[in-house]
Amino acid sequence: MAAKTKAKKTERDAATLSKIEKLAKGVLAEVTKGKNPAVEIRTRTLTNVSFNEKKKIIELGDRVQSREFFNTAMARKFMQTLIVAKGCKTLLDEGKTVSIRQLFYMSKHTLKGTTENTFEDQSESDPVIEDLEVTVDALREELHLFANKRGLVVGKLSVNDSGDTIDLAHMGSGGWGIPSICEPDRLKFVNNSAEFILCVEKQAVWHRLNEDRFWEDHNCILMTSEGQAARGARRLLQRMATELKLPIYVLVDNDPWGLYIYSVLKQGSINLAYESMRMAVPNVRFLGMSAFDYKKFTMPAAAEIKLTKEDIARAEQMKNYPWFKDKKWQREIQATVDNGFKMEVDALLTKSISFITEEYIPKKLRDRDYLQ
Amino acid sequence: MAAKTKAKKTERDAATLSKIEKLAKGVLAEVTKGKNPAVEIRTRTLTNVSFNEKKKIIELGDRVQSREFFNTAMARKFMQTLIVAKGCKTLLDEGKTVSIRQLFYMSKHTLKGTTENTFEDQSESDPVIEDLEVTVDALREELHLFANKRGLVVGKLSVNDSGDTIDLAHMGSGGWGIPSICEPDRLKFVNNSAEFILCVEKQAVWHRLNEDRFWEDHNCILMTSEGQAARGARRLLQRMATELKLPIYVLVDNDPWGLYIYSVLKQGSINLAYESMRMAVPNVRFLGMSAFDYKKFTMPAAAEIKLTKEDIARAEQMKNYPWFKDKKWQREIQATVDNGFKMEVDALLTKSISFITEEYIPKKLRDRDYLQ
Repeated sequence: MAAKTKAKKTERDAATLSKIEKLAKGVLAEVTKGKNPAVEIRTRTLTNVSFNEKKKIIELGDRVQSREFFNTAMARKFMQTLIVAKGCKTLLDEGKTVSIRQLFYMSKHTLKGTTENTFEDQSESDPVIEDLEVTVDALREELHLFANKRGLVVGKLSVNDSGDTIDLAHMGSGGWGIPSICEPDRLKFVNNSAEFILCVEKQAVWHRLNEDRFWEDHNCILMTSEGQAARGARRLLQRMATELKLPIYVLVDNDPWGLYIYSVLKQGSINLAYESMRMAVPNVRFLGMSAFDYKKFTMPAAAEIKLTKEDIARAEQMKNYPWFKDKKWQREIQATVDNGFKMEVDALLTKSISFITEEYIPKKLRDRDYLQ
Repeated sequence: MAAKTKAKKTERDAATLSKIEKLAKGVLAEVTKGKNPAVEIRTRTLTNVSFNEKKKIIELGDRVQSREFFNTAMARKFMQTLIVAKGCKTLLDEGKTVSIRQLFYMSKHTLKGTTENTFEDQSESDPVIEDLEVTVDALREELHLFANKRGLVVGKLSVNDSGDTIDLAHMGSGGWGIPSICEPDRLKFVNNSAEFILCVEKQAVWHRLNEDRFWEDHNCILMTSEGQAARGARRLLQRMATELKLPIYVLVDNDPWGLYIYSVLKQGSINLAYESMRMAVPNVRFLGMSAFDYKKFTMPAAAEIKLTKEDIARAEQMKNYPWFKDKKWQREIQATVDNGFKMEVDALLTKSISFITEEYIPKKLRDRDYLQ
């Protein structure tokens, strides 16, 4: 970072600040009029979440609930909402970002003249943060909050992160840690010569491909989400898909959990439905592992891991998701159940160390053998 | 990475290869003589582990056990040991590295003419890897194997990782991912102007310090282990301590678990006792959080988290470790028990967002307020 973040306030920060101020002024106006101040919050329950068939993302509906101050059931949460809003305002004013746990500590104190704490533990402040996000329509990253970061990236792209230009083609074996906050005012794409993005679930698979220099030979960006993708990784993928217009191929283990990781990248999750608009990448491609790869690549029996009851139950659940209703997906999910086993991407090493780099992925790409 | 790793074979790799070959030749010689081939393996049980008071590290003793081929209780493990050794030889020959799970897949197959697998699952291959490490006296990284990597670093240091020069002062908010393998033939220190290393347990704390540019103002290297330090992070710290001769300050949460993270960095762990020589950093300094920091920095009650029974039991265990027998450590551990609460580093945000950067750490460093 070339300059202290403190000194800057981006246009975006100014816009977010004015949203918070609007919320506060609304409350103040009601208080001044002697009315019962209230905040309208979009309901984040399952009944207000649906799959938008046209946009192909999971969305939050318009249903709202009112949180009032003069209501014994709501007064505490009302107070907490304003304390969290105040905390975020401070962060925006000072140009600093903190974790949601750190915001909890910033916001926790004993109310004067009482023994009552504003927050008892983080399980109280986290939902209030989500409330604030939907209320002022700002991602938590815009509120200067972050979740733990996870994920690594290398490849044919240069980025500028808060003033530092970083060439992702020269990251050695370590890779660049994907930041928690990948918003456009902090992270810019400087120079791209990649033709596509390959995102793999597992760190060890990423390592194998990086050591084999897959990204150089195939002119791409190589990323790992290290399991379920963190918000930073999702946002980065979404921005690369829209701004750089690059196709994204996802490689996960052949089991219902791998498919779920793909699913969240693609249409978002039910829990964070209000963020799908800026996080989901509906046209992300499922490169594998497919249940059909076992025969296609004549894998040995050593690659098989017997399905558990839990795996089968989860697969049946997946089949009922509206976004997997299409015949091709039903066929794919059913094939795993019919196989009776799951397969990890790592199992490709039963063939040879670099089979994944030299045979498996190139063939899948060449044959356009993916689902979408 | 500037060139395909494949092409290179370092002197170190050659040395490791010859160790494996020596093992294989020994076995072969006995077979040729019609004898019962055996491998001598240093016992990795608790009774063969001790704390070396002089070196201040946890060490593995000299006791060995013999693993014989013509012994029904040992034949399977004997076979597995040689299969793992063969896998590592292939990796060294091809100049490639894989995860321990990937090695499991490389080594798993059905024995010809039987339904018997060489390995059933990874819980069978992992201990065999550790056996091989002690037998040929090579870290698993030297055998071209890695555990999952974890940890981030930024600061006043440039490194060369497999041909790429990486300036850790220009890593933006993301930081450089600490590689799994930080051995000298792959990772070199190019240019250092740092005066010390600060290693923090939590990623969010690292983020706060990085955003505040602590490492620039204090001319240091800023690292996070992201919890219990992975092997790569430990090895990197150990090499920076010995080769760059930099003092290391560790900042963990004020609870027995934080202290244990410090303890493993300092004298190694019982499980991996045979690696302490190349992993432990006996003179690493415990900067905090100390149980005495609560009063010293007039922390508010909001910073307290009540100790659980488990915490107290763990603290009592810690007091019995030979390496914490010194009065100053007994005092430190007892103080947490007496406080009745633990404290996270994040709790410093109850004071102000950058209190940790501007007040807490500078004062601790200025006052030389650390334990060793």
